[in-house]
Amino acid sequence: MVVSNSRNHRMDADVPLLVPEINPEHLKLVPAQQRQRGWKGQIVTNPNCSTVVLTMGLGPLKQFGITRVVATTLQAISGAGYPGVPSMDITANVIPFIGGEEEKMQQETQKILGEFRGDHIEPLHAKVSAHCNRVPVVDGHTVTVSVEFSAKPGEKDLRHAFDSFTAVPQQRRLPSAPSRPVIYTEEKDRPQPRRDAERERGMAAFIGRLRPCPALDYKFVVLGHNTVRGAAGAAVLNAELMHSEGLLD
Amino acid sequence: MVVSNSRNHRMDADVPLLVPEINPEHLKLVPAQQRQRGWKGQIVTNPNCSTVVLTMGLGPLKQFGITRVVATTLQAISGAGYPGVPSMDITANVIPFIGGEEEKMQQETQKILGEFRGDHIEPLHAKVSAHCNRVPVVDGHTVTVSVEFSAKPGEKDLRHAFDSFTAVPQQRRLPSAPSRPVIYTEEKDRPQPRRDAERERGMAAFIGRLRPCPALDYKFVVLGHNTVRGAAGAAVLNAELMHSEGLLD
Amino acid sequence: MVVSNSRNHRMDADVPLLVPEINPEHLKLVPAQQRQRGWKGQIVTNPNCSTVVLTMGLGPLKQFGITRVVATTLQAISGAGYPGVPSMDITANVIPFIGGEEEKMQQETQKILGEFRGDHIEPLHAKVSAHCNRVPVVDGHTVTVSVEFSAKPGEKDLRHAFDSFTAVPQQRRLPSAPSRPVIYTEEKDRPQPRRDAERERGMAAFIGRLRPCPALDYKFVVLGHNTVRGAAGAAVLNAELMHSEGLLD
Amino acid sequence: MVVSNSRNHRMDADVPLLVPEINPEHLKLVPAQQRQRGWKGQIVTNPNCSTVVLTMGLGPLKQFGITRVVATTLQAISGAGYPGVPSMDITANVIPFIGGEEEKMQQETQKILGEFRGDHIEPLHAKVSAHCNRVPVVDGHTVTVSVEFSAKPGEKDLRHAFDSFTAVPQQRRLPSAPSRPVIYTEEKDRPQPRRDAERERGMAAFIGRLRPCPALDYKFVVLGHNTVRGAAGAAVLNAELMHSEGLLD
Repeated sequence: MVVSNSRNHRMDADVPLLVPEINPEHLKLVPAQQRQRGWKGQIVTNPNCSTVVLTMGLGPLKQFGITRVVATTLQAISGAGYPGVPSMDITANVIPFIGGEEEKMQQETQKILGEFRGDHIEPLHAKVSAHCNRVPVVDGHTVTVSVEFSAKPGEKDLRHAFDSFTAVPQQRRLPSAPSRPVIYTEEKDRPQPRRDAERERGMAAFIGRLRPCPALDYKFVVLGHNTVRGAAGAAVLNAELMHSEGLLD
Repeated sequence: MVVSNSRNHRMDADVPLLVPEINPEHLKLVPAQQRQRGWKGQIVTNPNCSTVVLTMGLGPLKQFGITRVVATTLQAISGAGYPGVPSMDITANVIPFIGGEEEKMQQETQKILGEFRGDHIEPLHAKVSAHCNRVPVVDGHTVTVSVEFSAKPGEKDLRHAFDSFTAVPQQRRLPSAPSRPVIYTEEKDRPQPRRDAERERGMAAFIGRLRPCPALDYKFVVLGHNTVRGAAGAAVLNAELMHSEGLLD
Repeated sequence: MVVSNSRNHRMDADVPLLVPEINPEHLKLVPAQQRQRGWKGQIVTNPNCSTVVLTMGLGPLKQFGITRVVATTLQAISGAGYPGVPSMDITANVIPFIGGEEEKMQQETQKILGEFRGDHIEPLHAKVSAHCNRVPVVDGHTVTVSVEFSAKPGEKDLRHAFDSFTAVPQQRRLPSAPSRPVIYTEEKDRPQPRRDAERERGMAAFIGRLRPCPALDYKFVVLGHNTVRGAAGAAVLNAELMHSEGLLD
Repeated sequence: MVVSNSRNHRMDADVPLLVPEINPEHLKLVPAQQRQRGWKGQIVTNPNCSTVVLTMGLGPLKQFGITRVVATTLQAISGAGYPGVPSMDITANVIPFIGGEEEKMQQETQKILGEFRGDHIEPLHAKVSAHCNRVPVVDGHTVTVSVEFSAKPGEKDLRHAFDSFTAVPQQRRLPSAPSRPVIYTEEKDRPQPRRDAERERGMAAFIGRLRPCPALDYKFVVLGHNTVRGAAGAAVLNAELMHSEGLLD
């Protein structure tokens, strides 16, 4: 039994890449995985930290038919571990590159937002592009998102989707689940990593600045705590979801 | 005679919004401006600092028929003047909002990349979307850009366009003109504001990371010095161009 | 009845300048204050934020006869309030000056460590010198301290004084009192503002690096949370102490 | 022939530890060094970066009989080389410890300000204490200094000593020598690393805030560029001085 935070196996066809609020039904892959691999155990992975933040912002909007996404990240230094980013590189600076990160965000997002098809996940048929940047912030990845929908929803539809979003971890009151997984911040200049990332014990995603996008349909900002919701807390919540499904018995 | 760095009049139909390397022919508006306004004098403006950076990155690519742009900025604190941004707001933080900035970037970019039509500028018929963020950097605005073209150029075409780009200020050897207005940085993690913004006396734009964009056609990073190329130096270069046209006689 | 955090009245002869763990007996000034001023009410003040930190480091050592102190502060931006320090001044920088701060630290420290003499406080007869600097830290003032003693204690005596220090707020279990007001950090590179200031709900002072000083007798580092222990929390703890003394009835 | 920037040999009795403006006469050690070691070559060292800054501040005052010094540094991250300090350690933080730095500053300062005695340097008989801190600054070490003198000079005497200070490298117009090695900044909140360290091509020391010290006699702030004046530029200036003495022939 493995609940993995590493990048290996995330994109295996029969391995769930899980964000418990967004794609809990992907756990149904496990029986096929065990059958195909001849395993009694199982492996479930959680995504790259920036993917978690992006998919928590996009998940509530999946119902409107996401067809295209352009996302730019402003990622905290803690995402690189320790010793991680040398201070000579990032103090009062931006590094517009994080090795392998854009590819991971693009592929993992398509898989997480994809559909369970018996023995594999059919990736979301959306074009997803990521620009990844490191900024001098301690904790909290900020992502600007432009998104295009096939259903052409109104702005109020999107806002309602964010405000009313709840999911399996909330319904089952999983111990590490935030009471509301997605929180819309009304202030015009929020969310901000230093002021918002640690709220809700670091387990919620914070959305703000939803507005029309002249190039695609809408744009907004989403922020999440990269080492809590994006890593350690994600793995714990995955395990809690699996336990509630009886998969850990 | 006014060479203005303020936001007023930038979008007036008969007022050139000038980036000397990108749209020097917009100075031809001046006679119509003088006629229409009954002025002996004239007014020429330079754009918002983040617009200068974006248009210097897009200008060399205009030939390929720009149809759509999604740009996200990571803007330095010096762009807000003094005292400007309180340190309590920006230390180890990101502010995902700069008042009025996105609208300015979107409109001004269309005008600068537009066509002179006798007595007005026909804006570029491209959809332009900006996400503007403040980051804890002293000088230098970094912009990530996804762009779509009607001509569907190859990546080498774009790279050649950047590398070979030169313009009127270079041809006339204007005193403040950088020898090369657009410089492509080969390193995979450049350009960076603290390391690149001050090169070429702050008057060039630095491009990097040109690559295909899964959502539009291509994506890249462009960086420029916001208080030099984006403000004081821009106004000086405008005046030098006007002088070389005989407009200041 | 006034419990004041402002600088006014702090140095009045008949007004307690209170750090509850360090000089609770200074509250005995109140009756004389009321008599002299003909007041029914009373005024009690809490010190400047950097003084609180310094005196919590020196208080446990007062028993050894402090005769000379050289202190250098590295103060957080939150100490200047909001909007406070412009980011253009402090990003990747040090400002080696804070208006009026050195004089306040020097005088207030002498008063707080002084003796109650019926109707006034006899200041500590120690030479106290402060160098005050602003650094790009959000919360937490760090102070390096060199100190000279008349009693010539051993290093173990000082360490024991820190480790065993407890005071009236702890004995009375005042609600805002930290369980240990002074905490010695064993790691060679601690205390640090980002890692330690918020521990103990921001109400303790953290000491580290006690060692001989070639110029005076000993040196060490002391850190405290400037807006909690140094301001809001200090005022609350003062009120709790006064209430426990029956002064608020 | 070695002009070394490493820590080895700095404290050898017969090896000059050179700051060309402060102790050029220590080069007279070389003949004795060659004789004692049976060498044709020679070794001359330059000090630790923080020692260079401190001794350039103290050198002009040596004439008044320095008897005691308490110095606290706020050192830039570039002093630790690359990758050097992890950004997780220093972003919005202070590290109140730099391994071995305090001992080096204390011993090296005594040697540099000491007297040549034929075959060795008699260290300055002053008590020197250093507190070393790392701060989130890119380049430039700031040092707060309290100092005691046997001659009890007036404040004007000290100020005149700073203002009139010039030395052998200036008199011989050595190529890397700053026109004035020590520059007093009049503004009440200077010198500052981001604004002053790079002035004079990084080769001068900047002094400010000279004032009486309640604990010793006077206090002031001194700043220097740690990787230029404190390392590479120091080694070059040493070689230029040696060349001007005929030692490199």
